[in-house]
Amino acid sequence: MKIDKVAVLGAGYMGSAITFPLSDNGITVNLWGTWLDDELIDRCKNGPHPKLKKLLPEPVKLFNSSKLEEALDGAQYLFIAVSSEGFLPVFDKALDHLEQECPVLTLTKGFIDDRGKVKRISKAAMDLFRNHSPDRELKWVSVGGPVKAVELSNLIPSATIYGAKHSNLLDSVKSFETDYYRIATFNDVAGVELSSAFKNVYAIGLGMCDGIYKTKNRKEYHNLCAILFSQSLKEISLIVEWSGGDEMAVWHLAGVGDLYVTARSGRNSKYGELVGEGTVPLEAYNMMLEDDLIVEGYDTLKLGMQWIQEKDERFIEKLPLLKALFNIIFHGYDSESELEQFVRGYPYSE
Amino acid sequence: MKIDKVAVLGAGYMGSAITFPLSDNGITVNLWGTWLDDELIDRCKNGPHPKLKKLLPEPVKLFNSSKLEEALDGAQYLFIAVSSEGFLPVFDKALDHLEQECPVLTLTKGFIDDRGKVKRISKAAMDLFRNHSPDRELKWVSVGGPVKAVELSNLIPSATIYGAKHSNLLDSVKSFETDYYRIATFNDVAGVELSSAFKNVYAIGLGMCDGIYKTKNRKEYHNLCAILFSQSLKEISLIVEWSGGDEMAVWHLAGVGDLYVTARSGRNSKYGELVGEGTVPLEAYNMMLEDDLIVEGYDTLKLGMQWIQEKDERFIEKLPLLKALFNIIFHGYDSESELEQFVRGYPYSE
Repeated sequence: MKIDKVAVLGAGYMGSAITFPLSDNGITVNLWGTWLDDELIDRCKNGPHPKLKKLLPEPVKLFNSSKLEEALDGAQYLFIAVSSEGFLPVFDKALDHLEQECPVLTLTKGFIDDRGKVKRISKAAMDLFRNHSPDRELKWVSVGGPVKAVELSNLIPSATIYGAKHSNLLDSVKSFETDYYRIATFNDVAGVELSSAFKNVYAIGLGMCDGIYKTKNRKEYHNLCAILFSQSLKEISLIVEWSGGDEMAVWHLAGVGDLYVTARSGRNSKYGELVGEGTVPLEAYNMMLEDDLIVEGYDTLKLGMQWIQEKDERFIEKLPLLKALFNIIFHGYDSESELEQFVRGYPYSE
Repeated sequence: MKIDKVAVLGAGYMGSAITFPLSDNGITVNLWGTWLDDELIDRCKNGPHPKLKKLLPEPVKLFNSSKLEEALDGAQYLFIAVSSEGFLPVFDKALDHLEQECPVLTLTKGFIDDRGKVKRISKAAMDLFRNHSPDRELKWVSVGGPVKAVELSNLIPSATIYGAKHSNLLDSVKSFETDYYRIATFNDVAGVELSSAFKNVYAIGLGMCDGIYKTKNRKEYHNLCAILFSQSLKEISLIVEWSGGDEMAVWHLAGVGDLYVTARSGRNSKYGELVGEGTVPLEAYNMMLEDDLIVEGYDTLKLGMQWIQEKDERFIEKLPLLKALFNIIFHGYDSESELEQFVRGYPYSE
């Protein structure tokens, strides 16, 4: 099937950046902004995207929040790139207008509090979908991997990983590939989704390490960073395996690749740095929020921990680094002594 | 068995740094320098180690090259930390004096040209050992993982991975652990050894990326680095598996952790940067050699490629990044266009 039209919900960084490779494939893209993005959508009509600082591709059609139905009209694929809090309300509305069988590809990461119960986004989406259409199966793709939106919009070579259950769905999404936007596919949603979510959490730990050593005026502590990096991936792989996913996702773009990028740059590691330097964790979160920087890893740590505890409280004991990060950020433990204690117990048996 | 005495052959960065955790365990360390290190050993007698810029621990006994027999006298464990070219001659001499059953732990990385045939160091060592003692089995440990020597000597928290065939040998080496020097163990030599060798090669590629984009005055190309980082580990895992090792080593300290550190800092990535900026690869190698910086990854790329080709020439086709690096460094191909071509073909099937 030739793909002519795709809708993208969410006009922030990633939703807007994905329009570049889609347009370069000759696809008409309907970009819809949420009620928070009405002004942004208006500005894109007459100038560069305010976050990407770049004109969106010519064929992209812009829709403000009141035009959801129009934006979805005729869309053969749907990308969702809203914030995790926005996901359920947006998806709920979209389901009223979505064509049957339209695959849903989500760039949203993290966990969702679905009326008091913490869920993976794919799970929350499927539960909602089942209410709407009890007899159909949601065609779901979790999009992960190391893609910074600004770089993608500047056509810096990027690779992403699309995780889905069915191979034919994965084959079809290869249509979105360009020379600079490469797509790897993976036959498991949980592996991709959980790697993408938790890498933001563990990037905080790596940033924390920078913050701690900065205050000591020390430049060389790579050995310690490597322990944290390696353990982060090990713990993500344990989480994926424990939740029934395929841990091989972790050893590919969604884990290894994405943690590498996220630790090198970005708001999560920056947040960790502030905490490592001694800023009170909640204050650091609010400081960044004032600059319009939502620290996703903070929210994912909170909800992710709750998600784990609801499933099996004892499992936390297998995740000493996650536990240390949680204690530092939500229980006020000292970052340096927590990390030191973590290292003294290293390596941990499974 | 209580460990009282250990010999370390090679008084460069790593051989000297390992004396810190050993001494802190109350072990008497005999540190022997090769014929290239006689002056260095003399200087250590009256002041700080010239490379580490630090006094060695009090209980370390220093031996110059003529005193190998004395250095080995009574040693219950032997660490070897000479260069890869020095490994066979030093090990050959050592075998004349070594106590029966003394385990050999090597920090030397890379490949060895053993009279025209390229071998993994462990293989070359075992062949040599068999000539000396046809009826005994060499107790061999490959030491890998992300440990920069200067940081270890400054007691920055570090973790290493010791790979060996037998569990009881691995259990015994846990005696070398301290609070700041953590030891993970792994039941496979090849996985640790090959990860440690090839991470130096792939770190060149990551540095190259820095060099290329520096010349374009671009600061943001993390997406591309992540592709290279992820593919590097994938290729190392393929190499390990192909050679009969356990690829899980790659997903632990020896691969993931060590590539992370090596890409962030060190001579291999620096070398790659020079090449990415346009310096002729051989010239860049020689420039660094003049500063006493041996680019191990360069030598490992040359010998490692030969090692692969001698075993099965077709296997190279499964390693497109390694092939690109080889073409750039040994065949004069342009780094930018080779990497671009690599990305255009990404992802690669196995």
